[in-house]
Amino acid sequence: MAQYGPRVVVPIDLKKKPWEQKFPLHNRWHPDIPTVEVVTAGEVFRIEMVDFSGGGITKNYTAHDIKHVDLSIVHYLSGPIRVMDSDGILAKPGDLLVVEICNLGPLPGDEWGYTGTFDRENGGGFLTDHFPCATKAIWHFEGIYAHSPQIPGVRFPGLTHPGIIGTAPSMELLNIWNEREKDVEENGIESFKLCEVLHSRPLANLPSTNGCHLGKIQKGTAEWEKIAKEAARTIPGRENGGNCDIKNLSRGSKIYLPVFVEGANLSTGDMHFSQGDGEVSFCGAIEMSGFLELKCEIIRGGMKEYLTPMGPTPLHVNPIFEIGPVEPRFSEWLVFEGISVDESGRQHYLDASVAYKRAVLNAIDYLSKFGYSKEQVYLLLSCCPCEGRISGIVDAPNAVATLAIPIAIFDQDIRPKNNKVPVGPRLIKKPDVLKCTYDGNLPITRNPSATQ
Amino acid sequence: MAQYGPRVVVPIDLKKKPWEQKFPLHNRWHPDIPTVEVVTAGEVFRIEMVDFSGGGITKNYTAHDIKHVDLSIVHYLSGPIRVMDSDGILAKPGDLLVVEICNLGPLPGDEWGYTGTFDRENGGGFLTDHFPCATKAIWHFEGIYAHSPQIPGVRFPGLTHPGIIGTAPSMELLNIWNEREKDVEENGIESFKLCEVLHSRPLANLPSTNGCHLGKIQKGTAEWEKIAKEAARTIPGRENGGNCDIKNLSRGSKIYLPVFVEGANLSTGDMHFSQGDGEVSFCGAIEMSGFLELKCEIIRGGMKEYLTPMGPTPLHVNPIFEIGPVEPRFSEWLVFEGISVDESGRQHYLDASVAYKRAVLNAIDYLSKFGYSKEQVYLLLSCCPCEGRISGIVDAPNAVATLAIPIAIFDQDIRPKNNKVPVGPRLIKKPDVLKCTYDGNLPITRNPSATQ
Amino acid sequence: MAQYGPRVVVPIDLKKKPWEQKFPLHNRWHPDIPTVEVVTAGEVFRIEMVDFSGGGITKNYTAHDIKHVDLSIVHYLSGPIRVMDSDGILAKPGDLLVVEICNLGPLPGDEWGYTGTFDRENGGGFLTDHFPCATKAIWHFEGIYAHSPQIPGVRFPGLTHPGIIGTAPSMELLNIWNEREKDVEENGIESFKLCEVLHSRPLANLPSTNGCHLGKIQKGTAEWEKIAKEAARTIPGRENGGNCDIKNLSRGSKIYLPVFVEGANLSTGDMHFSQGDGEVSFCGAIEMSGFLELKCEIIRGGMKEYLTPMGPTPLHVNPIFEIGPVEPRFSEWLVFEGISVDESGRQHYLDASVAYKRAVLNAIDYLSKFGYSKEQVYLLLSCCPCEGRISGIVDAPNAVATLAIPIAIFDQDIRPKNNKVPVGPRLIKKPDVLKCTYDGNLPITRNPSATQ
Amino acid sequence: MAQYGPRVVVPIDLKKKPWEQKFPLHNRWHPDIPTVEVVTAGEVFRIEMVDFSGGGITKNYTAHDIKHVDLSIVHYLSGPIRVMDSDGILAKPGDLLVVEICNLGPLPGDEWGYTGTFDRENGGGFLTDHFPCATKAIWHFEGIYAHSPQIPGVRFPGLTHPGIIGTAPSMELLNIWNEREKDVEENGIESFKLCEVLHSRPLANLPSTNGCHLGKIQKGTAEWEKIAKEAARTIPGRENGGNCDIKNLSRGSKIYLPVFVEGANLSTGDMHFSQGDGEVSFCGAIEMSGFLELKCEIIRGGMKEYLTPMGPTPLHVNPIFEIGPVEPRFSEWLVFEGISVDESGRQHYLDASVAYKRAVLNAIDYLSKFGYSKEQVYLLLSCCPCEGRISGIVDAPNAVATLAIPIAIFDQDIRPKNNKVPVGPRLIKKPDVLKCTYDGNLPITRNPSATQ
Repeated sequence: MAQYGPRVVVPIDLKKKPWEQKFPLHNRWHPDIPTVEVVTAGEVFRIEMVDFSGGGITKNYTAHDIKHVDLSIVHYLSGPIRVMDSDGILAKPGDLLVVEICNLGPLPGDEWGYTGTFDRENGGGFLTDHFPCATKAIWHFEGIYAHSPQIPGVRFPGLTHPGIIGTAPSMELLNIWNEREKDVEENGIESFKLCEVLHSRPLANLPSTNGCHLGKIQKGTAEWEKIAKEAARTIPGRENGGNCDIKNLSRGSKIYLPVFVEGANLSTGDMHFSQGDGEVSFCGAIEMSGFLELKCEIIRGGMKEYLTPMGPTPLHVNPIFEIGPVEPRFSEWLVFEGISVDESGRQHYLDASVAYKRAVLNAIDYLSKFGYSKEQVYLLLSCCPCEGRISGIVDAPNAVATLAIPIAIFDQDIRPKNNKVPVGPRLIKKPDVLKCTYDGNLPITRNPSATQ
Repeated sequence: MAQYGPRVVVPIDLKKKPWEQKFPLHNRWHPDIPTVEVVTAGEVFRIEMVDFSGGGITKNYTAHDIKHVDLSIVHYLSGPIRVMDSDGILAKPGDLLVVEICNLGPLPGDEWGYTGTFDRENGGGFLTDHFPCATKAIWHFEGIYAHSPQIPGVRFPGLTHPGIIGTAPSMELLNIWNEREKDVEENGIESFKLCEVLHSRPLANLPSTNGCHLGKIQKGTAEWEKIAKEAARTIPGRENGGNCDIKNLSRGSKIYLPVFVEGANLSTGDMHFSQGDGEVSFCGAIEMSGFLELKCEIIRGGMKEYLTPMGPTPLHVNPIFEIGPVEPRFSEWLVFEGISVDESGRQHYLDASVAYKRAVLNAIDYLSKFGYSKEQVYLLLSCCPCEGRISGIVDAPNAVATLAIPIAIFDQDIRPKNNKVPVGPRLIKKPDVLKCTYDGNLPITRNPSATQ
Repeated sequence: MAQYGPRVVVPIDLKKKPWEQKFPLHNRWHPDIPTVEVVTAGEVFRIEMVDFSGGGITKNYTAHDIKHVDLSIVHYLSGPIRVMDSDGILAKPGDLLVVEICNLGPLPGDEWGYTGTFDRENGGGFLTDHFPCATKAIWHFEGIYAHSPQIPGVRFPGLTHPGIIGTAPSMELLNIWNEREKDVEENGIESFKLCEVLHSRPLANLPSTNGCHLGKIQKGTAEWEKIAKEAARTIPGRENGGNCDIKNLSRGSKIYLPVFVEGANLSTGDMHFSQGDGEVSFCGAIEMSGFLELKCEIIRGGMKEYLTPMGPTPLHVNPIFEIGPVEPRFSEWLVFEGISVDESGRQHYLDASVAYKRAVLNAIDYLSKFGYSKEQVYLLLSCCPCEGRISGIVDAPNAVATLAIPIAIFDQDIRPKNNKVPVGPRLIKKPDVLKCTYDGNLPITRNPSATQ
Repeated sequence: MAQYGPRVVVPIDLKKKPWEQKFPLHNRWHPDIPTVEVVTAGEVFRIEMVDFSGGGITKNYTAHDIKHVDLSIVHYLSGPIRVMDSDGILAKPGDLLVVEICNLGPLPGDEWGYTGTFDRENGGGFLTDHFPCATKAIWHFEGIYAHSPQIPGVRFPGLTHPGIIGTAPSMELLNIWNEREKDVEENGIESFKLCEVLHSRPLANLPSTNGCHLGKIQKGTAEWEKIAKEAARTIPGRENGGNCDIKNLSRGSKIYLPVFVEGANLSTGDMHFSQGDGEVSFCGAIEMSGFLELKCEIIRGGMKEYLTPMGPTPLHVNPIFEIGPVEPRFSEWLVFEGISVDESGRQHYLDASVAYKRAVLNAIDYLSKFGYSKEQVYLLLSCCPCEGRISGIVDAPNAVATLAIPIAIFDQDIRPKNNKVPVGPRLIKKPDVLKCTYDGNLPITRNPSATQ
């Protein structure tokens, strides 16, 4: 019987380390990372991937691995894959690569995931000044649904998506990245008037040989050394797509990626079973291993036709995305608002980040009235299918941001009402295993090298 | 035959000025603005309202009125209305006022609206540095649908909502507002390192007797003078709700407003036939007159039960919203991304406002390839039901924001594709009447008094 | 100020009888009923209408008016209206008339409706053998929502639509109708082996001068007499549209009607605030007065282009409908199934009507376990937005039909579960005013003239 | 590494015949078919299944296998499986078995399916008098999407579901089935006045040893012989669920099945990648092999608590279903209507089957104007996610049924319009390989033994 179903282009063996796979993984962006396969436009193919940590974070009920995670190794990516048209001609710089997500999911036999908050001194997160401790929740999958023993009373269908998908940058684009990020790393505190306490997180994550994996290129060789010193970290989303963390990029979506190098050199990783808009706790989606079934098309000359550079060079572009008709739909939402006044009462000017922070903090406080600890809610809002919106960005001085939470994911009615059912022992959702491993007396200082 | 249907609590006569109405309108927030009516919890009642400009902006095909609009008079509000329970006891400070939007729409016989961009020197907008001119589009309503002769080829159902709904602040809360906004007005450029060119817009809009209307209180009296000097402008959303511009607050939604004064003193105005997330052009929704049919409930002690102060005082709270099951649903979306790198190529640190600006600019450039001018698209994205999301807010240094546009509102297929239909004369959507009245040689300086 | 908003083409004064209106109403289909107005393609216009009974059924809490309703007068329609193109040329036989529903709703000041079950001997309904009594529920509207004191614990948004919309038949088509319906009336019991007890309802409703209204034509004149004897009753849907009772024909929908006479002669009536698929209790929607805002287009020659006759003549066609993106959406449904085995246990062959009857009976029994009487549920399933589906029509001998009910319309969780909350006094939803006026000892015989 | 993911309770090896599997399949309903496994409430487990024909219908581009299919063998089911609670106590008669569909899909490596129409003399279908020939379309899956070389220009996401899921009947229930179906088989033509030409299809499918498979029970043994003569065919849906063909029973749905024998004895099969309401061509879904991931709960005594017998015995019940929030959503639909007047122009009395037939025929004729053959559309409407509704069932004499087709599945705009694009060679969708193998001169007679 002939095999039907997609060709497996990048297989993963979960018993092996990221660098021991048939096609060793990479965790940097660089045009010279060797490609592993070539696919043809119109072909449906399968890419498998490890979780972002490559197995470093385990399903044990402890946050110790989160606290001491080596962030220099994130994120392990599968690929790069070259794409050619049906005449065998590779995608070329200036083309647009259309990647359709035909299907995706966890790897069979590995149907679990985790959500964590990093320690303030090792990664941090959007609310790290409020939640400095490492915590972790394990999620069990029941088909399309996820639930966690650490966050009881909640169950939701996953809007599963790859956190990272992108093409390789050209050297020219890579240099642009490195320069502008170096600038913020060196001058950010001053030029943005950033508060040091707030920003114990690194301002940027510059190239670092530490933890660097480049696929087939042997560690320690001269070639490796050269590339590792230049290659961009995978943490931020950029012109090539990358870590865009768009939670709706699920089944039926299309991604229109600019092509910067011959072949396009598509890489992907960081699968999320589910994520809330913003992925606020940083280790914030339900992180897992997984597979993608993809189909590519090439729009010749599509960059010029469809993307307008927004910056000093023709490379300052962004991908376009198309969301399809297949996702969980919720009909009722509870919405929390934040305005750009910070927790000290200080007014900021049309700052959507401050407004969104307030919205998330408001939601956390609110939901903690229903039997949850604030740490639990912070984890939940990082990974459940909540929507983060920029509602008003012009009404000086207040930006208004909103966080909308689908009511149906809770097993209790979370709406405000008269005669609220008191949270009795039966409703207490306190987890017994969610560990806080922050010891509380670390110096509160900025530690820009934390993730390098 | 007994009348069925809601009691009209605040009627509007469109032939009269805002201050000539049966209940003269107000355009400031202050606890001492006299209330006009009292409603009972459970009762469905109707409030009518003028457009935000009180008729100052007309349906004539010129942007002259937009360019020279007197922004000191925005926004004309209907109310304030006191709310009591079925025992006749008024809502009290500390309660939560639940306002359900049972129905809403344009005023019969006045089914039209407008969207504009203010001149950079008189109001500006989110993209005022790119689009400094005053422009205007008139929208005609065909029942639930809107279309504009100035933006042909687009038609969409309205997700109609009040831009402003809120309770009166207490004096204590009002003082907090005035102090913190004065701080940003005076120290903003310095403390936020704001670029002067970018911010020719006022940083805040402090109390001003100019243009102030206080309902029944006679202009020029001592009482008026005292209140006018204290009363907050209606431009930003704040703890009392106010100009939150949440585009999904349509039929079937509920708003949970904190109560700061006895009676709650509910005011509302600034009806929008439709708005995009962010209302980017500032005069950006489809602005119109309209009516609301509301039903109130009181949750006694609800502020303490449900809202957690986030700031130095118990008053630092925000309303909660609930979105209902009745709104236009679109199944396919084209999504534009922005990262926190500005148009000069400069890297910003996790700045969602910069990222959203990039997303909007990308969308404008993209859609201009389909026969539209950029000004047209800027207006369109301000008012069509597009979604602005904070997708990633943790992946230093790049915040990722996205703007999702429903594909179905266009009469052509706007997806990237091979063999794109060339934009021939038949498809050119250039408007002949959208006026740009900016004369191009104004000094580019910050003009903080522009709206005062 | 120029009036914006649709032209009122057919106004209704609710203080007047149907025949006293400015344009007296009609309740028959005939090509010679005089038209009242002409509209132009592209123009948005407004038609107002009375409820189907023309005020015969009142908002009093008694079913007496339902029991003794004069069904010879149903349904009072507004129109007929001629349609011409922008060159002033009328729609012609063979064209397709596109009617877009731009907006609709109850008449202002008349925001209430009713749902009833007719007495078995005067109208009956789908389940008349189970529910022989006349009953009535009054619905109050709160904007888009309806609730009834007779069916407490339920509230839902209306998917409002006109029950009847259609073009005038030509004489040729009218003759076809009258012949085929006469055949079933005369030979139905025999030819369909119908059970007499089941079918105390009339098999068809043939032309009848009794109760006939023909607009401007004076009752009792020779002209009236002639037309009244030929004119088709409005009860069934037919080739011209008519009483199609498609519950999703709400805002944003389009109806493509065949044109049989010059001008098209569009009539409409029987507004429903909401209806369940099947309208099972016959007086089953939430019946009300109302208005439509319509926009017409003419597709010249569209009947030939798009409709294929399915029968002996070119007139055997059916309209086409287009459902738009604006309706209440529910995400969770409880679904009841019926198979084509009747209540006596007898097997029927792929009979979808029997299967649907079983599905509805199953749903009624189920919901009666949650504190409702079966009469209440029968009324509810007639008018709430439930979906009736033909799930399987090929698996001999059982047709499978399903009835899906949105879970969110109830204020209790109606799903089967362990530890079901017992229905205590607090949850008992028994109505105190829903009157059953059937006296129980009427002869159970077929009464075909009941509605004539 | 511990295995995560569901336990595989019934594995399928596609290289083997249905009777050679580890747990040989069965194709009849009987309480004495041996169970193959036991599962515990709360456990997520996996059942794999063959396509309904057990591989008899192949992916070759010929309809020969459809025409000569041995229908005595349908449908091969996996199971039966016993269900116990966490205390090890089996489900008991009178309980309700809750089966949640956590996930489902095609078997990996077998991602294809087929849709066919049976020959009028061997199976037939809903429209067999119009489409007497055997035809077949092969569907290729691209993740969630299906497309067919035989029906070009169409692509849609699957709403995948098991056609058959049910519990074993008790002997008492089995006897009821056999008696009532024997009655229709013997007396149907007479008692229902059925037209012989129309119903060349069998009226029922009575027990038959021919083609019977009973799992582990050896064919030809006395035990096999006894059971085979009693066991019910799987074709119709019945009180135990069975072939209910509810197209929305996809991911996240729950099925509440009555329990008639100890252990419940759950069987399932007949996986559909997608199906239209009605499954009109009979071999009408996209038939495929597949897997289900299920989770069971037991509601003790739930039959009495929740199901009301509707017939002479307490066994005359039907399952209940719950549709979840995860399915493809379409926002625009084209709707075809049928009334209960048949193709000869004859009036039927409130017959929903006739009305639905007309609706389907209307849709077929309409879509054939867009470059398709009618056979192609008949296949398409059997398997695409179209909705079949009972819109009006009370307006004597016409039942109104509707068929709604999502517009987005076509690559051309199928709406009626002026200036329709003519169907030129480029748009002709005629398949070159869809074979019609009916030879056209078979006697048109009823052949009740065709599927036995």
